[in-house]
Amino acid sequence: MIKLGHIIYSNCLPMHAGIITGVVPFPFTLVDGIPTALNRLLLDGGIDISPSSSIEYAYNPGRYRILPGFSITSRSAAKSIILQSSVPLNELDRGTVALTTASATSVVLLRILLELRSGLSPDYIDFEQGKEEPPARVHAALTIGDHALKLEPSPRFPHLYDLGALWHEFTGLPFVFALWQVNYKKTIDKDLVLLYDVLQRSKEYGLSHLEGLARDYSARFGIPAERLLDYWRSFSFDLSEKEQKGLLTYYAYAAELGMIESVPDLRFWQAP
Amino acid sequence: MIKLGHIIYSNCLPMHAGIITGVVPFPFTLVDGIPTALNRLLLDGGIDISPSSSIEYAYNPGRYRILPGFSITSRSAAKSIILQSSVPLNELDRGTVALTTASATSVVLLRILLELRSGLSPDYIDFEQGKEEPPARVHAALTIGDHALKLEPSPRFPHLYDLGALWHEFTGLPFVFALWQVNYKKTIDKDLVLLYDVLQRSKEYGLSHLEGLARDYSARFGIPAERLLDYWRSFSFDLSEKEQKGLLTYYAYAAELGMIESVPDLRFWQAP
Repeated sequence: MIKLGHIIYSNCLPMHAGIITGVVPFPFTLVDGIPTALNRLLLDGGIDISPSSSIEYAYNPGRYRILPGFSITSRSAAKSIILQSSVPLNELDRGTVALTTASATSVVLLRILLELRSGLSPDYIDFEQGKEEPPARVHAALTIGDHALKLEPSPRFPHLYDLGALWHEFTGLPFVFALWQVNYKKTIDKDLVLLYDVLQRSKEYGLSHLEGLARDYSARFGIPAERLLDYWRSFSFDLSEKEQKGLLTYYAYAAELGMIESVPDLRFWQAP
Repeated sequence: MIKLGHIIYSNCLPMHAGIITGVVPFPFTLVDGIPTALNRLLLDGGIDISPSSSIEYAYNPGRYRILPGFSITSRSAAKSIILQSSVPLNELDRGTVALTTASATSVVLLRILLELRSGLSPDYIDFEQGKEEPPARVHAALTIGDHALKLEPSPRFPHLYDLGALWHEFTGLPFVFALWQVNYKKTIDKDLVLLYDVLQRSKEYGLSHLEGLARDYSARFGIPAERLLDYWRSFSFDLSEKEQKGLLTYYAYAAELGMIESVPDLRFWQAP
């Protein structure tokens, strides 16, 4: 039985809304997780297809195929990729930055923005968002997903930076943070044809019912319905030319930083 | 200041013994972690060099350089890479296997042994060893490190398989599970020259004081001194021709399984 990953953050809901509400029949298995856990399951073979960190695709070139037409992309402000800082960003050079272990893609984005855009060389440590506070000694912390969406400036971290907005200012491009990646084997092709149809119908249902979904899921995510709606409307969920250009530009900077060897070709899954 | 990762399991102690006991001066920073956490920090840029999962090197081809002469390799039985199973291994075909999130290399090793050696196709899920028991519905569970070293057959899992022993039986080769990997930047070369000297002296100290170390660290690891000594003596800590052959064979099977794109060249760090 084919297994589909599902990101538990609210940004994934519109795409999987038809499946999760039961409106679109789903004769497969859904596996919930945060992005890095889903990356790992995809790599292990524990799931077959998942909305997964866009950097995961480049970390394992040749391993995955991309599902055409599906992404989670911020057009400008991402709202949910936030660097909290005790000092203005440009003063982080000698500082220590805590990186959420929930994210793979945003960590590379942060390094691009700090090191390539701003010429800084901070130290990095990891922290588990939601389970622990950023350690006392750090000067800034990167948080993602719904935790990030709910952050407010605090006495400890008066400065909040939206990395999607900084990326857009830097490159003029959208930022693709998730791709639906297939851990492809020939044996799952038949199931994938079915699943692709289900996903397209689920997306269509979700994007045409954003208001109702925001109302229904506001309590579950602990986010006011209007804010959720505003958040969802700031995304592109497609993967057309503009999103692909944003993605390839991101890979090019990641390669410049030495975090990936080279810019991978975008290999799409095609129905047999 | 250059940062060196340190695996908290007892198998890493002999190599870092000189540093940890203070016998060899260490003017750097040591960062403790389990293998997957260290992989992640190395990838993030949070540490510069670490004993790190051997599959991590192949997952990120071109990203790291290998420190010559350093590895953690089981000559035959690994003693600390254990599959516990409710049924004989050959009956796991339709079963579900829980994979420890602490390991990257052993997960690929397990898939090689189950899928390529035995022709099985189980399902995989992840579990956090030490924090939770393998979920009730799984038929087998992979555990590594000191947790694995202490496993005994139980009513739930009467069968224990040592993956190092199975690998040796399958290939006749040793199994390299950790390499000292450098997240190389030209700017750290001067520090690396110093650190390499420190590491060589630390290893020399460790390997010539195994008995005393086993006595001194037995309580800390909760492992009887004799068992610890026996465990350490089952390893090779070198990376000469035989270990490299084991490593490249492992990569070749990982590629056959589709878990990596191809067998990477072994690129070693060389003193400038």
